[in-house]
Amino acid sequence: MSTKPPRSQIVSHLPATVPFTAPETLERQTGIKIHLRLGANESTYGISPKAYKAMQECITESHLYGDSTHYDLRKELATLHRIKMEEISVGGGIDELLGWIARVYLNPGDSVTTSLGGYPTFNYHVKGFGGILHEVPYRNGKNDLEGLLQTAVKTKSRILYLANPDNPTGTWFTKDELKDFRSQIPEDCLLVLDEAYIEFAPDEAVLPVDPADPGIIRTRTFSKAHGLAGARIGYAITHREIVQSFDKIRNHFGVNRMAQAGALASLKDPDFLQQVVKHVAKGRQEYAKLAEELGFSAYPSATNFVAIDVGSAERATSIREALWEQGVFIRVPNVPPLNHCLRISVGTPKEQNLLAHILRKTVHNLV
Amino acid sequence: MSTKPPRSQIVSHLPATVPFTAPETLERQTGIKIHLRLGANESTYGISPKAYKAMQECITESHLYGDSTHYDLRKELATLHRIKMEEISVGGGIDELLGWIARVYLNPGDSVTTSLGGYPTFNYHVKGFGGILHEVPYRNGKNDLEGLLQTAVKTKSRILYLANPDNPTGTWFTKDELKDFRSQIPEDCLLVLDEAYIEFAPDEAVLPVDPADPGIIRTRTFSKAHGLAGARIGYAITHREIVQSFDKIRNHFGVNRMAQAGALASLKDPDFLQQVVKHVAKGRQEYAKLAEELGFSAYPSATNFVAIDVGSAERATSIREALWEQGVFIRVPNVPPLNHCLRISVGTPKEQNLLAHILRKTVHNLV
Repeated sequence: MSTKPPRSQIVSHLPATVPFTAPETLERQTGIKIHLRLGANESTYGISPKAYKAMQECITESHLYGDSTHYDLRKELATLHRIKMEEISVGGGIDELLGWIARVYLNPGDSVTTSLGGYPTFNYHVKGFGGILHEVPYRNGKNDLEGLLQTAVKTKSRILYLANPDNPTGTWFTKDELKDFRSQIPEDCLLVLDEAYIEFAPDEAVLPVDPADPGIIRTRTFSKAHGLAGARIGYAITHREIVQSFDKIRNHFGVNRMAQAGALASLKDPDFLQQVVKHVAKGRQEYAKLAEELGFSAYPSATNFVAIDVGSAERATSIREALWEQGVFIRVPNVPPLNHCLRISVGTPKEQNLLAHILRKTVHNLV
Repeated sequence: MSTKPPRSQIVSHLPATVPFTAPETLERQTGIKIHLRLGANESTYGISPKAYKAMQECITESHLYGDSTHYDLRKELATLHRIKMEEISVGGGIDELLGWIARVYLNPGDSVTTSLGGYPTFNYHVKGFGGILHEVPYRNGKNDLEGLLQTAVKTKSRILYLANPDNPTGTWFTKDELKDFRSQIPEDCLLVLDEAYIEFAPDEAVLPVDPADPGIIRTRTFSKAHGLAGARIGYAITHREIVQSFDKIRNHFGVNRMAQAGALASLKDPDFLQQVVKHVAKGRQEYAKLAEELGFSAYPSATNFVAIDVGSAERATSIREALWEQGVFIRVPNVPPLNHCLRISVGTPKEQNLLAHILRKTVHNLV
């Protein structure tokens, strides 16, 4: 690397890694064209017609910067969650919010606790700000709440990350389990509760919102149930003073104007959201049945994907590779024991049928 | 502020400031509705019809994440600039790129040199990463190249920022002046050459592109001439190893999918760009004449705005306030001697006429 002008101490020690390789990059690397894209938990049910209309109308306003305070969207979100708009911060998806969190809470060398095999982009940001990751293995197919707590205490962690419902397993905890968990976190440690998939979860999985608690940041997104992944918009629900901390560092005019319009319109179409959630629940059941039929077991899921345990890492990799050869994009987590799993996003009925057909054939050929 | 959990050392010492107050916020604060928005150098000529079509077609793909490598766009940009795509990094507008630059090059306490009254968002990011700003006053209405160099050397600055053409004056230097300037910058100091307005500038203002030089990062945007401010997309031209440094910290899936499609389509419509540049040049002339008619003087401009010196900070503020009362949004820089200036974006012919009418009336009423 050119040493002049010198990079910062943190950056010059960072490895060259990316949290995820884009499917487009995989296509270019292998010369294979994806025709079934079920590896990034994108919503194949698309976006609300109301969001479509709002975004279309907004194209002619593309020459104008968006509102840097996201006023209208935050106001609507505040009403929805029965909190104050000052308790909401909008950013370019949860990925951007996780970067803010690492920056606001970490000094170089500070400890952070997460699950081994948890969301790679969170880990990327933690390392990117000089944090030290402590990773706790999954236990009995779920995040190990007790293990996470013990590690956070032992390492004096500044941040503890938990996704609920979880990615990549799809599993979840109840609000009582979460309340108990939160109450045991030391006051010097922030709980990041990543709720990217919360719309797909049962009510019992939703910890009641309490923005008076400065020890928790909940992250939400329009990328999953709302189908706005490409628009890049999400938000944090948290204590107003934490929102103020974000305001000191965030890229104020960073959120796309159409994304703001689309997200606002989507919030005003609860019927669409309900339909998506209903279809996804059905799709999960189909995947669970398919897994059973093939002699595998599916993790219970409260998300828009299902993790199917095929028994070994070797088999999971073989299946993933064979599917890829046929233009089917799914993911296999790369950490044991999750690397026994195919993580497959729920698709439309047509996509689900096609996936079932190809997976059956693939598994039979491999056995 | 809640002290638990504690924020990082840098963030806990940051003041609560924003680089710019959004016009929407000003409207809410004052109850005045803007009907002439000429304060943010947005392009009132809008976007290319090709960009419109590409973005419209892309709405139905909103449920898909965008390409995290921006492959197609970087390839097209590489062809345009006759460089390698590995020498280009795409981000969510120059604002985001400036944040990456501060993060990649600064340790807390490092010095940075810029012009007093230069781009506030750059300063915001420098302070946000713990940098110390050294600000060199404008001289004879332009950035003081010699003063900037001396200060950069004296303070052992890690970054030296120069906008060419300049914001907020609109002035520019020739490629020979820039070459000479660049050659005198110490090898431990990075030159950030912000070229947000370069499409509006004469050829003589464009420093030849040399991505073999690891001491310079040039920032470009689709927000101005291409009219895609609300889409949030820009790029850096630089040494490939600096692109690799950005790849270690950037939010990889952060750029909106429609923005990528719109930017790519806009690049393929050079006729549109040429028309915009032509209209803007005419608009600048009109503003210069208007300034003269009113007894003021306009700075020469190679941008899509004109800074009109009205003689004193008091008068500039009075005019800005009187215009605001009439729903006209322009800006007045807040640092001497630039605070003698009204910075007015070029508008459509209709907007220009309206602005001229209101400004004449306002100035006559004030005198």
